[in-house]
Formats: sequence, C-alpha cells, structure tokens
Amino acid sequence: MAVPIVRLDRVTPPPNRSRRAPDMGPHPAVAAIRLAVRRVLHDVLTDQTAKAARFAHSAPGPAPAGEPPLVLVACSGGADSMALASALAFEARKLSVRAGGITVDHGLQDGSGMRAAEVVARLTAMHLDPVEAIAVRVGREGGPEAAARDARYAALDDAAERHGAAAVLLGHTRDDQAETVLLGLARGSGIRSLSGMAAVSGTAGRYRRPFLHIDRQTARKACMVQSLPVWDDPHNADPAYTRSRLRHEGLPALEKALGKGVVEALARTAQLSRDDADALDSWAADVESSVRDESGRLECAKLYVLPPAVRRRVLRRAVIEAGAPAGSLFARHVEEVDRLITGWRGQGAINLPGRVEARRQGGRLVIRQG
Amino acid sequence: MAVPIVRLDRVTPPPNRSRRAPDMGPHPAVAAIRLAVRRVLHDVLTDQTAKAARFAHSAPGPAPAGEPPLVLVACSGGADSMALASALAFEARKLSVRAGGITVDHGLQDGSGMRAAEVVARLTAMHLDPVEAIAVRVGREGGPEAAARDARYAALDDAAERHGAAAVLLGHTRDDQAETVLLGLARGSGIRSLSGMAAVSGTAGRYRRPFLHIDRQTARKACMVQSLPVWDDPHNADPAYTRSRLRHEGLPALEKALGKGVVEALARTAQLSRDDADALDSWAADVESSVRDESGRLECAKLYVLPPAVRRRVLRRAVIEAGAPAGSLFARHVEEVDRLITGWRGQGAINLPGRVEARRQGGRLVIRQG
Repeated sequence: MAVPIVRLDRVTPPPNRSRRAPDMGPHPAVAAIRLAVRRVLHDVLTDQTAKAARFAHSAPGPAPAGEPPLVLVACSGGADSMALASALAFEARKLSVRAGGITVDHGLQDGSGMRAAEVVARLTAMHLDPVEAIAVRVGREGGPEAAARDARYAALDDAAERHGAAAVLLGHTRDDQAETVLLGLARGSGIRSLSGMAAVSGTAGRYRRPFLHIDRQTARKACMVQSLPVWDDPHNADPAYTRSRLRHEGLPALEKALGKGVVEALARTAQLSRDDADALDSWAADVESSVRDESGRLECAKLYVLPPAVRRRVLRRAVIEAGAPAGSLFARHVEEVDRLITGWRGQGAINLPGRVEARRQGGRLVIRQG
Repeated sequence: MAVPIVRLDRVTPPPNRSRRAPDMGPHPAVAAIRLAVRRVLHDVLTDQTAKAARFAHSAPGPAPAGEPPLVLVACSGGADSMALASALAFEARKLSVRAGGITVDHGLQDGSGMRAAEVVARLTAMHLDPVEAIAVRVGREGGPEAAARDARYAALDDAAERHGAAAVLLGHTRDDQAETVLLGLARGSGIRSLSGMAAVSGTAGRYRRPFLHIDRQTARKACMVQSLPVWDDPHNADPAYTRSRLRHEGLPALEKALGKGVVEALARTAQLSRDDADALDSWAADVESSVRDESGRLECAKLYVLPPAVRRRVLRRAVIEAGAPAGSLFARHVEEVDRLITGWRGQGAINLPGRVEARRQGGRLVIRQG
C-alpha cells in the first residue's frame, strides 16, 4: 500500500511567518489553531507519561530512555489540514514532540499523485519528519464516501504502526462536525448517531481532532495569513456527494432560517449527545446481568420495568450479540422486539438482520441466529 | 376571556362523506386520520375507566353513573385541525365519547373574529357539541410565537376545565414535530430540546396529539376528499416567523440534501430523545441524595465519579432549585459549574442566571442565590 517516500525541496516561504509585526503576536486565527493543537499535544504527552509509568511499574529494571513521541498529521492539502500541519510544526518545536505528516493519495482524480507530491513538499518545508505520501486503492463498499474513508483510515493506521506514532491528528472542524450531526439526524436512529466525531478515537485513542471547536473560516484564515497555499478538493463542491450538498445548500438554508448559531449548536449537540449515549450504554451494560434468569435468558417481566431507553439498549445489545450486524440493525427493528415486552398479544417470531430471530417464550425472550 | 358561544347554521356538506363508493371504504388518508384518532380515544377511555375504578375504590357507595367523557378538539380552521375535527366527529359516534370543539381567536389579523365564527359553523356542522370560539389577548412575552401559544393554551385549559373535558386533541403533525426538533437543535442545549412535542402532555395528560405520526399532506388530502374547506393561515407563510422560514426554506433544503426521509427521521429522533432524556433525568433524580453530605451539600468527590451526562443533570437540578430560571440556564452555564468538579484549579464563584452563584468550598459545592 505504501509508495516510496517522496521528498521535494522547499517550495513555500517559511510557513509560520505571520504578516503581523512580531510584538503583536500571531494573528488571532493562528493563535487559535496553535492553542487547539497545544492542548492536544499536552494530552498526548500526559497519556505517554502515564503509559511509561505503567510500564516502569510492571516491568522490572529502569524504563526505556525513549525518544520524544511522534505525532503525525493527516494532511490532504486542504485548508483545514494545512492549518493543522502548520500548528503542529510550530507547537512540536516548543514541546518534546516529534512531528511528521502523511498524505493519502486516493487515486480518484487525475493528477492526484502530483498533488500528493506537492503536499509532501509543503509538509517537508514545514520541517515535519517523517513525511510520506501513501497511495491507496478505494473500493466500492458502502458508497464512494465510505469506501474512500475506509481506505484512508487503513493507510493511516498502517503508517501510525510503522512509524510508532503516539497520535495522528485529523483536521475535522466544527463545520465538519455540524455536517456529521445532520447526517446522523437523517438516519433517525437515535442520539448515538447525533454524537458526531469524537475528539479522541481509534485504537488506544490514536486519532485526535484538535479542530472540532475551530470553524472552517478560522482554519482558512490561518492558512492565508501564514501564506500557505491550499487546495480545494473539487469533491467538496460536487453535488453528487451528500456531504457536499449539505455543506453548500442544506446548512446555509438552515442558517438562514434559524440564525448563524446553528453550526455551533450542532457541534454542542454532538458533545452532549455523546455523553448521554455513553451514560445510557453503561446503564444498559450494568443492568444486563440482572434481567437474565439462571440460564442466561432475558426475563420479560424484569425488562418491562426498565425505562424504555435502557430496555431498548439491552435488547439492541442482545440482538447484536446473537449475530445481527450493528450497521443493519435500525431503531424500528429494536422497537419491534420491544413490543414483545410492552405490547404482548401473542405475536410470532420477529425476523432481524443477520438471520437473527427474536421470540417470546414462557415469559422469556429467545434471541438467536437461525 | 370567553366570549359568548357563536353558533351558525350548517354551511358545509356532511363532512364525513367520502367521494369513494361505500364498498371501497374511506379514502386511505381518511382511514389514516380516523385510525390515529381512534387509538387516542381508546387511550382516553382506558384512562377514564382506571380513574373511575380508583374513585369507586376510594369513595364508599356506588360510583357516579356519569355521562360519556367529553373530548374537545382545538381547531384553527387549517387543514390539520379540520381533519382532526372530522375524524373526532366520526370516531366519537362509534365510541362512547362526546365530541366538542374549541377555536381560539388570537385577534392578530383583521377579520379573525369572522374566521372564528366560520370555524364554529363548520365544527357545528360536524355535530360537535359544545362548540365555542374564545377570543384571547396575545401579550408580548417571549416573542410573538410564544406569546400566541401561551394565550392559546391558557384559553384551552380554561375551556377544558369549564366543560369538564377528559382530553383536548391537538392537530400537530409529523411535519410540525420535525420543525420542532430542528428548532430545538438550533438551541444546542441537549437531547431534551430535541424531543419535540409529546403525544400526551399538560395537566393530567389533558393534551393529546393523535397526528404526530401523520404527515401534513395526509391531513390536507383527508380534508380534500371530505370536501372540507380549509383556511391557510398567512402567518404560516410569513418569513418573519422562524417556523415559517424553516417550513418553506430550511426543511426543503435539508430534504434536497439528505433525501425525503428527513421529516420521518426527525420525528423518530424526537421520540428516541424523549425516552433517553426521561431515563437520564430519572437517573439524576435517583442519585441526587447519595451525592450530598449530611447537611445536604453536594460533595465534589462523589459527583466526580458520576458519568458526565448524569453529573451535569444533577448540577442543573441543583442550580434551578437554588432559584435559576430553567429557561435562562444554558448548557454552557452548567458546563462551567461542572468544571468546578472536573477542572478544579481554584477558580472563583460562577455567576448564573437568577443571581445564583456556584462556588467550590472545602470539597463541597455551594450553590445559592445572592
């Protein structure tokens, strides 16, 4: 999957040069992106220290001396990730962090290889090291957007492993978050799908999104004042993509109707929904053993007295455990199973995705794959 | 507030006449609205029977014979509530229910009194009894939409009391629900504000919304095939109103970007969010006493270990209990109080709406009105 590392000579002026006089400090947009990255780097360092302490505790003898942790930035060459790369380059120098960059060439557009080489050149000019372009083959599964995303994360995972990176920074902004919430809303499958992208995700919290509270305009401004050329992906304006339609038509119309605060409100909704969904999931996990009989079958009477939100989560978990693929299990499926508890009138077995079947039998719920 | 009841002679043809031949049964739209109303009337009757049983149990001697319960419909003359009135008139005859109608004259447009008289005439022609027009004075508090709503519900509450109504039916459709969810989303204050309108609300569950799963188009169609003239409130198309902008611009743009299922997805989100918010509120209420010391003060260490979603609800309750008006207390206020627990670095007292102040003192949270 990896292609040889492409290194070009510096093609841009030193990226962190602000047009403001030195005593004025950086432009507010630049200050904002740097602060966001600094916070995340502090978190990464704290986590590394904790890990090292656990290691020192469990392994006898001195802890390995270790070089500073490596943090990679995933950079498409667009304004968001170019701003992120510039802030990482600046902040890493001040902290004990090595900074590198990865650009993924999806091979979906003519000249994408050339573009990747340009991004590598720009990241190298920022003194990031290592810098790598990775060419991937995008499949078709789940539609063009999902397939590109899957290929991209596989490449980033691979790069993080190879380089032993402590973290990979992603440039998703508050605007991306708002769009993600609306996409989740369109699924109508509950608050988990409203919770957008996490600030920390992936294996061992590898992926970090420092810009979830930064708007796209700030990232763009930060590039401008630092004289960083940016690339506008034509896919982002292609109405064939749902997210692009949302960005250029849906969200502006919502803002016109509801006011300018919509993006911020959606991003805040994401955070609140994520916390709520986490709490309810933990509740469902906690009660699960108490609603089963000695042989492990779910007891309808005990399920009945649970709050509906908790009961439906217990049922959803049970159906997935029985073999239903989580991605194909919708709220309406779970509601139908729920009616075996709350609206029992002798109905027959319920067919669920993944050939899973749920039936009520002698006051117990039997959920199994056929 | 009430004006004399206006009764006019029948001005429309018998309302339940469908254009279809009798053996075809009613038009699907008419069948859908009738089914929705029938379900709600069954619920009302079940609740009445339970109430009567409780009464018979608690009071010595025979239960009062009692006449059939009265169900009122709130009718503006628009398609949704005209369809609702027609379905109520039809279904009440088949069940042991008396059906009446109320129209509220907000006095905000020229000729609104005439319009109210027309609605009274139409409801009377459907053989609803009693039928009443109530003129209200709309204040200014909370903006024009909120003020009109407050005046309307006060009038409906009053009418329900005077007539001893068991329920008041409201014509809100799935489209209204979707709009309400988006309005809540724009506040960004969490899942409670995403939960839209309840199917049952008000004192003793007085208000019922049978059409929350019926779309506006179905209600309109049902009026058309029953030859019911309907009134299009010009306010509904006035871009000065947020809801109107949402209806005519925001939602259509979202549907264009995300697909036709958006309205249904928003309505489903409302139901799921409501259940989730209820469960989390009950959790917060349950743990509240366990996180206080003997003298009733909140203990920071005990709050710290709660899931964030639960902790913030406990804090919100405590701040409201101390005197902060719920409507002015935003998520960001509660987050700031939360940082006294999760991000303690000796910060000072936090000022909250309603002159409430929160400070951390000796590991306890002191929340009081200044």
